[in-house]
Amino acid sequence: MRVLAFLDGTVAEPDDPCVRATDLGLLRGDGVFETVLVENGEPRELGLHLDRLVRSAWMLDLPEPSETDWKRAARQVIDNWRGDGEFAMKLIYTRGSDAGHGSAPTAFALGLEITPKMMSERSEGIAAVTLERGIEPGLAVRAPWLLLGAKTLSYAVNMAALREADRRGASDVIFTATDGSVLEGPTVSVVMVRGRTLYTPPPILGILPGTTQAAVYRGAERAGFTAKIEMLSVDDLYAGDGVFVASSVRKLTRVHTLDGKVLPDASELHRELSAAYEAGYA
Amino acid sequence: MRVLAFLDGTVAEPDDPCVRATDLGLLRGDGVFETVLVENGEPRELGLHLDRLVRSAWMLDLPEPSETDWKRAARQVIDNWRGDGEFAMKLIYTRGSDAGHGSAPTAFALGLEITPKMMSERSEGIAAVTLERGIEPGLAVRAPWLLLGAKTLSYAVNMAALREADRRGASDVIFTATDGSVLEGPTVSVVMVRGRTLYTPPPILGILPGTTQAAVYRGAERAGFTAKIEMLSVDDLYAGDGVFVASSVRKLTRVHTLDGKVLPDASELHRELSAAYEAGYA
Repeated sequence: MRVLAFLDGTVAEPDDPCVRATDLGLLRGDGVFETVLVENGEPRELGLHLDRLVRSAWMLDLPEPSETDWKRAARQVIDNWRGDGEFAMKLIYTRGSDAGHGSAPTAFALGLEITPKMMSERSEGIAAVTLERGIEPGLAVRAPWLLLGAKTLSYAVNMAALREADRRGASDVIFTATDGSVLEGPTVSVVMVRGRTLYTPPPILGILPGTTQAAVYRGAERAGFTAKIEMLSVDDLYAGDGVFVASSVRKLTRVHTLDGKVLPDASELHRELSAAYEAGYA
Repeated sequence: MRVLAFLDGTVAEPDDPCVRATDLGLLRGDGVFETVLVENGEPRELGLHLDRLVRSAWMLDLPEPSETDWKRAARQVIDNWRGDGEFAMKLIYTRGSDAGHGSAPTAFALGLEITPKMMSERSEGIAAVTLERGIEPGLAVRAPWLLLGAKTLSYAVNMAALREADRRGASDVIFTATDGSVLEGPTVSVVMVRGRTLYTPPPILGILPGTTQAAVYRGAERAGFTAKIEMLSVDDLYAGDGVFVASSVRKLTRVHTLDGKVLPDASELHRELSAAYEAGYA
């Protein structure tokens, strides 16, 4: 099951080609995107996702996306979805065909199924590995052309890191900076819990501000937790009571094993935080 | 003028959409490419480009490209080209549509015009700026998942760096590593000449082995130059008799100004090295 809609509200057959060979999103990974969770007909955190899409577009000098147009396309995907009650909706926004063509950006919303593996990992938890990202904490601020913290279509490295995790028998990655700081995963935020306090690293390190992480933080604070944005080391992760990865598709998924070492059982913590997160959409 | 051909030898209208919205080359920048210079019906260094395409594909765990198929597609583009005698031919190879689809890689060759700006810069030279790339020299070997030295479709950062150069009144970029070492440009190799010796940094730093740089080296050695692969600092560039950028589209283009400082006039050196390079295709 797939649904494809354009910003003018038209819906198209997703198996039909709709993008030119000359599109810079394809030729150069030159564009930005978001992945939104849709559950029971409601897109979660659409406002936060669109805010981040605007911010990513600004970092890439792309024309400012129109929230009205994106909401219309998103609504079309949701209204035409005939699959499971829960699915992933990508918002794709590229620089369009090359300059010789003088064309406008390419923009569409695409509904996609969530894999059974991803669904079962939500309840069973995952093994993760740490991998060097090779950047130092001050770089993002100093070198904006590196687009650290923009959600671009240039995700080849993110995908290669996930394949490396797979080779090591794990399902996800926690990237580290040159000083050993915890960053994020290729498609997830990292959240560590110690006692009744949640920790996640700051976006100034060149990582994405997580939409699901933000929603988990709101829920956790309502449930009496304290939520902090602070730099973390890998040792901090081992010293915590629970390590989680958060994304639209993963929701809040427990990391039960890190670099082959079993972490403390955080099943109960996971239940409590997941309930707090879900309460935001009840 | 554009020509589009697929690996089975069919030619298509380049303005017609031919790629699905679900293609991972588009959604994730998950693929590899080459840009080949075609002059008077002959693709330059096609063998080196195909070798590098195979190497990039291997680094991304993509199925090994078939040289026979790529040569067929390239021939179709060349035979159907009706534009200027000189053009750029891109070879694009993506992971194809997402796994749910079970489809094969997406692969095509695309003939594109070279911009008048690029052509005039070949004779007039360019201003370039140095920009931090944020990686240290040993990283590429230690962290293969970062795909340093693979020519992937994830070029958003490369394009952002070129926009940053434009903002600074320059046409190209020379990236530097964290220790100040010269790396490469977003789409070019860097060559420095001192006396009768050429220098370019080693691929082990996580940069592409340049096809045009290799051709310039062959020509220069035939013309009596010595050609070395060595680490360079930015100070080395200032101390040289000439700094050049090399790529299929740029050929060998002189850098007349670096970070706003005028470099020694290397016009004569440029004429001599360009003649040596062109002699390889006479």
